[in-house]
Amino acid sequence: MEFSVTQIAAIIGGNIDGDGNTKINNVGSIEDATPGCITFLSNPKYEPHIYTTEASAVIVSRTFSPKKSVSAILISVEDPYLAFTQLLEEYNRMVSLSKQGVEEPAYLGKDVTLGQHLYRGAFSYIGDNCVIGNHVKIYPHAYVGDGVTIGDNTVVYAGAKLYAHTAVGSHCTIHAGAVIGSDGFGFAPMADGSYRPIPQLGNVVLKNHVSIGANATVDCATMKSTIIGTGTKLDNLVHVAHNVEIGDHVVMAAQAGVSGSSTVGNYVQIGGQVGISWHIHIADKALIGAQSGLGHNVKEGEKLLGSPAFEIKSHIKSHVLFKRLPELNERIKQLEEKTLNLPTTKEK
Amino acid sequence: MEFSVTQIAAIIGGNIDGDGNTKINNVGSIEDATPGCITFLSNPKYEPHIYTTEASAVIVSRTFSPKKSVSAILISVEDPYLAFTQLLEEYNRMVSLSKQGVEEPAYLGKDVTLGQHLYRGAFSYIGDNCVIGNHVKIYPHAYVGDGVTIGDNTVVYAGAKLYAHTAVGSHCTIHAGAVIGSDGFGFAPMADGSYRPIPQLGNVVLKNHVSIGANATVDCATMKSTIIGTGTKLDNLVHVAHNVEIGDHVVMAAQAGVSGSSTVGNYVQIGGQVGISWHIHIADKALIGAQSGLGHNVKEGEKLLGSPAFEIKSHIKSHVLFKRLPELNERIKQLEEKTLNLPTTKEK
Amino acid sequence: MEFSVTQIAAIIGGNIDGDGNTKINNVGSIEDATPGCITFLSNPKYEPHIYTTEASAVIVSRTFSPKKSVSAILISVEDPYLAFTQLLEEYNRMVSLSKQGVEEPAYLGKDVTLGQHLYRGAFSYIGDNCVIGNHVKIYPHAYVGDGVTIGDNTVVYAGAKLYAHTAVGSHCTIHAGAVIGSDGFGFAPMADGSYRPIPQLGNVVLKNHVSIGANATVDCATMKSTIIGTGTKLDNLVHVAHNVEIGDHVVMAAQAGVSGSSTVGNYVQIGGQVGISWHIHIADKALIGAQSGLGHNVKEGEKLLGSPAFEIKSHIKSHVLFKRLPELNERIKQLEEKTLNLPTTKEK
Repeated sequence: MEFSVTQIAAIIGGNIDGDGNTKINNVGSIEDATPGCITFLSNPKYEPHIYTTEASAVIVSRTFSPKKSVSAILISVEDPYLAFTQLLEEYNRMVSLSKQGVEEPAYLGKDVTLGQHLYRGAFSYIGDNCVIGNHVKIYPHAYVGDGVTIGDNTVVYAGAKLYAHTAVGSHCTIHAGAVIGSDGFGFAPMADGSYRPIPQLGNVVLKNHVSIGANATVDCATMKSTIIGTGTKLDNLVHVAHNVEIGDHVVMAAQAGVSGSSTVGNYVQIGGQVGISWHIHIADKALIGAQSGLGHNVKEGEKLLGSPAFEIKSHIKSHVLFKRLPELNERIKQLEEKTLNLPTTKEK
Repeated sequence: MEFSVTQIAAIIGGNIDGDGNTKINNVGSIEDATPGCITFLSNPKYEPHIYTTEASAVIVSRTFSPKKSVSAILISVEDPYLAFTQLLEEYNRMVSLSKQGVEEPAYLGKDVTLGQHLYRGAFSYIGDNCVIGNHVKIYPHAYVGDGVTIGDNTVVYAGAKLYAHTAVGSHCTIHAGAVIGSDGFGFAPMADGSYRPIPQLGNVVLKNHVSIGANATVDCATMKSTIIGTGTKLDNLVHVAHNVEIGDHVVMAAQAGVSGSSTVGNYVQIGGQVGISWHIHIADKALIGAQSGLGHNVKEGEKLLGSPAFEIKSHIKSHVLFKRLPELNERIKQLEEKTLNLPTTKEK
Repeated sequence: MEFSVTQIAAIIGGNIDGDGNTKINNVGSIEDATPGCITFLSNPKYEPHIYTTEASAVIVSRTFSPKKSVSAILISVEDPYLAFTQLLEEYNRMVSLSKQGVEEPAYLGKDVTLGQHLYRGAFSYIGDNCVIGNHVKIYPHAYVGDGVTIGDNTVVYAGAKLYAHTAVGSHCTIHAGAVIGSDGFGFAPMADGSYRPIPQLGNVVLKNHVSIGANATVDCATMKSTIIGTGTKLDNLVHVAHNVEIGDHVVMAAQAGVSGSSTVGNYVQIGGQVGISWHIHIADKALIGAQSGLGHNVKEGEKLLGSPAFEIKSHIKSHVLFKRLPELNERIKQLEEKTLNLPTTKEK
């Protein structure tokens, strides 16, 4: 797709300094942009690049005044980074509009309610009694089990799997290979040491604006619902066990996992490869550093690190001394030698 | 589906106190059940809920005698929790019976032996020379490579992949997106620093009653078989490398991994995100705490924690002191100051 | 498939001691081989097995002279292990040649350029404007998005997903369920605590001879390319975030992850479950032990361990003392008791 600088300035509400007819067909960073690209200058430390960039156009702040000559066309706005992001979103939206209709063969079960302006890719599967909103995209090989509901504008990428009775909100994004609603890992130990599966009859509820990363897994509840709150984003290969409830606007980085029946509040940030034990509660706005292991409840706003985790600054201090343990040991030895001839003050 | 209390009492062998014609159409926990639900009371600490529950029926112990009036119908049995589980299993079985037959298009290779009462979902794939038992369910997008054998009553969920020559027992459950039989990570280092793939010609054997979690991966052996023993349960995103042999009735929690050629005994419990090195042996009934890293053999019944892991109680003691390292360091400093004027007893 | 010893000796350039007409139909290890198998003897410690093996033929070194009678036919070569590997590769190649042609239904988009001698499995999907090289195999349920390019001799296994505009080199192997090109985990925090997705418009480039493990994920770049270098091997369930650049001949073991915008040099070895933070650089030939966490740049050839990681030998020393912390604490206590009556030399 190709746009003129004038069209772009109209989208982002900017003023043009240069030839508005110039054509733009790509985006890039200010260091690497090539002719035909548009880029942006937000962080002042990148200012030197604006005098050498090959980009055809640069989005700049209204307060920016060049110290040398700039060959690129300038489009000035209030917040260049935000404007650039808006432009990318608009571009994404246009590209995405081009995916519509049905590629055959696509499977459609009985008694399905389908919204308008759908994309249903080849080999996509929609089971019986599903309700699919408007502008939903179901990519090739996506599996939508019986009785699933999907809200407007949600995208289910290639090969994502929604088990029966999953409820997905609007404006959600489910990336390729993600599995939503698989059986929770519930097994009752028998007297002989074997395990008997506990039937998992609940489902998963994803509220609105949820994003699920590639190959992430969210298990269904035993009886009620595993819940992922509004605006929450799970990265690739994240695992959420049965009966977990995650609040709104939480971010969980890649390969983190939450065990069964734990609850996570709102605005919590969870680092990569973090492990959270079962039946614990993490209160709002907590921050859990990467690779931490949590076995206890976490209070509002706490910042934790380590496995098992404790307060982040204390952990850093302890770890500094962990590295110095050989030195500490040596100092203890020297003290022992020095005090060798002292009388023992107390026998125990 | 809907059942009468009389039908349910017959299934679980219970005695009814109330109207056996009452209809039940759902299950719930004793706190949250709504009219039409059946629930159970097992742990005495939940007893207060039985006097307020909205459930239509509650499964209770034969020894239970209410202290106040209960509006729900009571069904008394020996072990309420077990009876409830049996009921869920029976329900599951009935729901599952409704999935039968073939949804087209489904791919079927040459010389395949198919059992009775199968479900083959749309876009499922069965390669040449496979042998599929009775009552097997192959969900949409499941891939069953050439020469695979699958025992009776096994379920392969949506998009699970079985590479050629995988052997799956009976009563197994393979969840969505799991990959069984991918090439082991075997590369011979060359003189120039590059790697040459070592062909992986073996297969994977899953014995009976094995459960594999969503998006878990089990690699094929280099020459013989990677083996998962009877009744063993792997959670979501677990990784089992080539040539590994896992015994019977082992549980591995989510995101744990076992490296090549290691062996795990029977009745072992492995926590989430545990990493097990290559060529080691974990003896029967060992217990490995979450996020542990194992680089050495583990003896029967040992309980380990940490990375690298050691005996769990010792680890907890060491970790308590890890948190107190700044205090220990301070105490050493004070001792050094206090002994500053002592003569050095021994020069080294 | 069945070969004569003479045929095998011709493939690996070996000399036969025994009956060249003997038929070989399988491979095995020297301990476990059965009649009809070929095996090899490379490590002298396995020599005793050659006098008892049931294998029909054994590949041995030209310098090997048996100390007892051997019933197997011997094929002598320069390097028995290498010869055996070559044999397995040749066998693999022949088996693989048998997969060719198109299984219907397979989806093919518009304006696709297809090479010669392809395998396109049932339910495989190739989007618009793709360019597919010669001898490429696209297994069932594999998804190749619009504008993807794939070089000669690359294999895309069942259900692997390549998002639009992914560029894959030649001789690559992408295992089942791997996802290449999913959106990077990029979200701009808003004033109200919610997150706005940052459009991810870049792609992923896999150079030649790259291997991607089952259910691994590689995210696309925000604007340019996430790059995996020549000969690099990623194990199962590995995660590579957006904008990452990994050099040539790197190995990353299972469940390891690299965060956004980090760079990894050539010949780096990364253990299982390692986590690498964002915006850091790991120089050539570094070695990172399993389960390590990296928050800082790593210099060429450094060997690190731990979370957070430091020099491997120092880490081992510190960990030995971590286990002995209760003893260290006890020794400090004894010193305190012993010095109880000493005057304080310095007040602070």
